[in-house]
Amino acid sequence: MLKDNKFITRTEIKVRFSEVDSMGIVWHGHYIKFFEDGREAFGREHNLGYLNIYENGYFAPVVKVDCNFKRYIRYGETVIVESEYVNTQAAKIVFRFKIFNKKNDELVAEGGSMQVFTTPDGELVLNNPPFYEEWKKQRGLLEG
Amino acid sequence: MLKDNKFITRTEIKVRFSEVDSMGIVWHGHYIKFFEDGREAFGREHNLGYLNIYENGYFAPVVKVDCNFKRYIRYGETVIVESEYVNTQAAKIVFRFKIFNKKNDELVAEGGSMQVFTTPDGELVLNNPPFYEEWKKQRGLLEG
Amino acid sequence: MLKDNKFITRTEIKVRFSEVDSMGIVWHGHYIKFFEDGREAFGREHNLGYLNIYENGYFAPVVKVDCNFKRYIRYGETVIVESEYVNTQAAKIVFRFKIFNKKNDELVAEGGSMQVFTTPDGELVLNNPPFYEEWKKQRGLLEG
Amino acid sequence: MLKDNKFITRTEIKVRFSEVDSMGIVWHGHYIKFFEDGREAFGREHNLGYLNIYENGYFAPVVKVDCNFKRYIRYGETVIVESEYVNTQAAKIVFRFKIFNKKNDELVAEGGSMQVFTTPDGELVLNNPPFYEEWKKQRGLLEG
Repeated sequence: MLKDNKFITRTEIKVRFSEVDSMGIVWHGHYIKFFEDGREAFGREHNLGYLNIYENGYFAPVVKVDCNFKRYIRYGETVIVESEYVNTQAAKIVFRFKIFNKKNDELVAEGGSMQVFTTPDGELVLNNPPFYEEWKKQRGLLEG
Repeated sequence: MLKDNKFITRTEIKVRFSEVDSMGIVWHGHYIKFFEDGREAFGREHNLGYLNIYENGYFAPVVKVDCNFKRYIRYGETVIVESEYVNTQAAKIVFRFKIFNKKNDELVAEGGSMQVFTTPDGELVLNNPPFYEEWKKQRGLLEG
Repeated sequence: MLKDNKFITRTEIKVRFSEVDSMGIVWHGHYIKFFEDGREAFGREHNLGYLNIYENGYFAPVVKVDCNFKRYIRYGETVIVESEYVNTQAAKIVFRFKIFNKKNDELVAEGGSMQVFTTPDGELVLNNPPFYEEWKKQRGLLEG
Repeated sequence: MLKDNKFITRTEIKVRFSEVDSMGIVWHGHYIKFFEDGREAFGREHNLGYLNIYENGYFAPVVKVDCNFKRYIRYGETVIVESEYVNTQAAKIVFRFKIFNKKNDELVAEGGSMQVFTTPDGELVLNNPPFYEEWKKQRGLLEG
């Protein structure tokens, strides 16, 4: 789904018992996994997952994450991760995430991630890899 | 150790095999655990850990985290987490973290966390709980 | 589905990137989570999940697990957990699990878990709790 | 330490907040990590860790684990993992583990793991790799 040069994918995650802490709520660090689940769900839908990137000869390590926690999620509940691809001119992949409680649509957390491209040896790639340039072009995301 | 109204605790963490991903590096989400390890090491040193807070009748859920990843950590390596307590007038606990590779002292990641106080029922506490006010007072962290 | 006094539930789990180790395969310890996912999927279907048990005033901690690993699972793959409830006269909940690779139905791992009943204070319950006795009765699992 | 052709290593692990579940106890699946911590502590002491094995051109995936849970561990507590190398004629690495609560030496859990050798491509190695044969020889663990 394309809206104003943005793509959004929604994915559903059932909370695991082992993800809930002694306060009875999902431990905050697990939201970083939920973000990755969302990012990879987007990747499967739009051919931009880790495996797609790897097949093109690159890694895309996460270099930045942030998350604001607004409400609790408990065991037995399901979250919806809304992953929005944010277009940028730099050789980066940027996402913003919103996590909702499925039962009432309340916003539970929001945050973002930034990835760069490296060679399999870990060397930073400063310009968009050709496959990513093509990926953007096909989606009308390149500046004129 | 008190420096300019700041406290810093250093703690050492050996990377687990299960924390390393298929790129051979520590999966980025685990750094949030390392931050918590650092925060709790500070807490044990200065009586501000989760258990101390709980004994005083409060929870201190994390409401915000961020992390910038600068270098990789591999299996077999050890990280040093430097946790710096940042004094603030709000009813919050704020930390900045720096993670170093023990073998060469290189900065691997840095970030922060913010906690608020709630009752055990999850109700937000808007002013500093008395025990925290006292905790700050004893350390010369209250504004005149 | 009831077969010879046994119940079987099948549930599907997409492997997470963070669950894959540096050998490129799902880290073996994560299978214990998959078992729990299977057990809880069974629980949701048959009202014997942690939350059902808790609502009846009990905990059901796992006291025994075992797992045999037969094949690898890689990132991008999906597993099917087949959870089979094994009837026993003791005050226990016993499951056998089989994990299959969805893409080719190959058996990836198999194992089991045993749970006992405790009070919320952690005291072991030696006889079947009334709700569990009733649960078994309704399913024809009590010996004449 | 060698006792009757057995080697035992003891290692200490501080329980993480994120490892404790909503019952306030360490989630059972984390014990598999503690076993690996113990196995790797043994490996560092006796040159039989994952990295040693890898440097010799092999992987040693876990093909079997089991664990019996006897007591609870809570946040703030520390466990001692006692890892005992069990000599066997087969091309396997076998360990038995005992986990104790550091504060009172009570046995918390016990179990075991079995590893086989594979090539980096994942092919099973049926006989002891030369480096392992040598490793055993140096420790008087070879028959006849």
